[in-house]
Amino acid sequence: MAAPGKMHLAQFLTHGPSHHSLGMWRHPKTASAGFDWRKPDLYQHIAQTCERGLFDMVFFADLNYISDTYTGTLDPALRYAAQAPEHDPMPLLPWLGAVTKNIGLASTFSTSNQHPFYAARMWATIDHMTSGRAGWNVVTSINHNQSANYGVERAASDERYDRAHEFMQVCRKLWESWDEDAIVMDRENAVFADPQKVRRIEHEGRFFKSRGPLNVVRSPQNGPCILQAGTSPKGQDFAARYADAIFAIQPRAEDAARYYSTIKTLASDVGRDPDHCKLLFGMQPIIGSSESEARELQAEHNELVPVEAGMTILSAHLDFDLSALSPDDDMTIREEPELHRMRTRFRKPDGTAMTLREVAQRHGESVGLPQFVGTARSIADQMEAYMATAGGDGFMLSAIHSPGAIDEFVEQVVPELQRRGLFRTQYKGNNMRELLRQQD
Amino acid sequence: MAAPGKMHLAQFLTHGPSHHSLGMWRHPKTASAGFDWRKPDLYQHIAQTCERGLFDMVFFADLNYISDTYTGTLDPALRYAAQAPEHDPMPLLPWLGAVTKNIGLASTFSTSNQHPFYAARMWATIDHMTSGRAGWNVVTSINHNQSANYGVERAASDERYDRAHEFMQVCRKLWESWDEDAIVMDRENAVFADPQKVRRIEHEGRFFKSRGPLNVVRSPQNGPCILQAGTSPKGQDFAARYADAIFAIQPRAEDAARYYSTIKTLASDVGRDPDHCKLLFGMQPIIGSSESEARELQAEHNELVPVEAGMTILSAHLDFDLSALSPDDDMTIREEPELHRMRTRFRKPDGTAMTLREVAQRHGESVGLPQFVGTARSIADQMEAYMATAGGDGFMLSAIHSPGAIDEFVEQVVPELQRRGLFRTQYKGNNMRELLRQQD
Repeated sequence: MAAPGKMHLAQFLTHGPSHHSLGMWRHPKTASAGFDWRKPDLYQHIAQTCERGLFDMVFFADLNYISDTYTGTLDPALRYAAQAPEHDPMPLLPWLGAVTKNIGLASTFSTSNQHPFYAARMWATIDHMTSGRAGWNVVTSINHNQSANYGVERAASDERYDRAHEFMQVCRKLWESWDEDAIVMDRENAVFADPQKVRRIEHEGRFFKSRGPLNVVRSPQNGPCILQAGTSPKGQDFAARYADAIFAIQPRAEDAARYYSTIKTLASDVGRDPDHCKLLFGMQPIIGSSESEARELQAEHNELVPVEAGMTILSAHLDFDLSALSPDDDMTIREEPELHRMRTRFRKPDGTAMTLREVAQRHGESVGLPQFVGTARSIADQMEAYMATAGGDGFMLSAIHSPGAIDEFVEQVVPELQRRGLFRTQYKGNNMRELLRQQD
Repeated sequence: MAAPGKMHLAQFLTHGPSHHSLGMWRHPKTASAGFDWRKPDLYQHIAQTCERGLFDMVFFADLNYISDTYTGTLDPALRYAAQAPEHDPMPLLPWLGAVTKNIGLASTFSTSNQHPFYAARMWATIDHMTSGRAGWNVVTSINHNQSANYGVERAASDERYDRAHEFMQVCRKLWESWDEDAIVMDRENAVFADPQKVRRIEHEGRFFKSRGPLNVVRSPQNGPCILQAGTSPKGQDFAARYADAIFAIQPRAEDAARYYSTIKTLASDVGRDPDHCKLLFGMQPIIGSSESEARELQAEHNELVPVEAGMTILSAHLDFDLSALSPDDDMTIREEPELHRMRTRFRKPDGTAMTLREVAQRHGESVGLPQFVGTARSIADQMEAYMATAGGDGFMLSAIHSPGAIDEFVEQVVPELQRRGLFRTQYKGNNMRELLRQQD
């Protein structure tokens, strides 16, 4: 359980019109704010707001496809903006680096259709440019739409994690191929670097070959911070082994507690300090000036999500076409292995089973993130209570309208958390990893 | 030949300690300027300076390796900073996008170890973020060091251009997979995009498969501007077919004239307006307050380049180990096919043959770019004269010290060119392509 002062906060974003909420782009406050998800000005505003709020990071999810899983056509994803379109988030990190000073800048980057030399080089460069504020959410994909865009066969789930492990090993070798003091810069004698302090890696593995060295010098964090969101056993093992921080979606605090314990144990088992592997739980704040106003705002937002939109995004995430099922089906008794992966989202907080219609609706509203609804004080209470039950080291926040809901959280909830001694009052440390480990 | 007012200017850069000059990092003015090539602040200063100078673009070269070609070890490249290290330039484009408004932002990005879906997505995104100021220098690589870093066999030269052609075709299809008016943003009826205006590409070719559509909406320039620097017949054909601008290094204006004529004819032959394929010749300005001071500055700079450094970078560019040859060898009579590619750099401006020592020394100083030496007025004269003989639509400039030499050019030579009516006095047009086509 988190001691006072230890909470960490990340703002979840995408480079597209939808984050977790498929109602966000329709929201009247999003519209009146002049929301243009194609323009970096929006993300600049958000990153500067979150930096003012002393967040650990802004974080971008990513996909390399538009899903046709629901009904077998692209139409519903395009119509409902169900993670479609989604522009490449990577170029946003340096843009935001130019206009912020302290906040971590993190993005998803899929290893599935890349070589580690390319990834290691790009990430080490961004880590340099941001003076150690780069964070990489390492993902692998088995979605059939991504495979089709890259013209490859889908990998088996087990094989993709073996490949991801080797991918990380090659990246680490490349990041360490330059000693920290390799650059001599002896202008008098024309010696730029000491060749004895730069090494080949000569990697030859099952999936990759790379000779090296990297042509990027040792970066401030020796490569970026590593983020993860693995849920399968192999994914959890991968996360516990490499991640500086893990994102998890657990609608029920009891399931969150189980996940927390699993991850921290796994991290210990591989010889890591479990406190160096932070666990951030997803949460969608809905803030009102009174409890009843907050409930009205929640209802207003949730009604902006057509159930068909929820069916679309849930089918996309499962890569399973739910149009074949009845909306009244009890999701907890389905036996398809594709559905099993998200089984913790098929029950209400009180444990009762949900129908497909209910699950889809919730998924369209928040992709299963619990909604914390109330005044700023009440939301701080709920955050405190969730952490007391679930464990966890903080939260990944997702907005219901943009960018106003983020402004509101920073202006109203952050000061409340600070008053309670639950959140930092200044940035310390020299890089993102130190920020994630900041205790006070 | 360029009519008055039609000159275009690009600033050549790398994300590393050396550009074309291997003396630059040692230069006293580079040292006193606090040069830190790892920090984006340097490139921010340069891009803002070039924007003040109304340049068409800043441009980053790139390599995915450190060359071991000379002597078979990495040592000389590391010692002399012969394009080693070289950080990924791509993340610099969005950073510079955040701090400039009008100037084009261009970088090399190799197609050799990538899939077009990835490239098309990244470039379309950067084109959005910069409001149409993205420029992609499309290169393919057969260097054995790059192949070893990516663990692949080297492609044959002919095959690599066939692959590059198909790469561009797939990118173009992906860039056009969203109609310009596909986004409906009908909040009332929950219709984000019109599915009828977004298409699969279903590409199945010799080298690539991709289903599409791209998950990036139509970008301002419909993909980035395309830049090229092809010299082989296949490379010239590729450039004439796709490029909005071509960079060329031609030490002798007569060779430049021949190249100019070839490219413009090829562009016509494929049905393009030859004026839409600009030709920018490389040039290294050395500015003094008097002719004699400029000559002294030239000598001071050139003496900073050890001949071994020149041997290293020339071997790297040829991917041919010149340590096996005698420094006194006449380079014009060597028959190795690797050397043939750079044959126009083996003669002095008066046509006399050069020894390996002389070619290597020149290559270390400027990679064969002619040095234009003199007062600001004299350099403007030389630019005018080169264009009168060579044709060409402008210049790619490369600095002898950084960032001061770029400041000097903008402060001293640009106003002189403007006085002569040879260069624009304001930015016009809505994107980089229009900038390259700007006539006044």
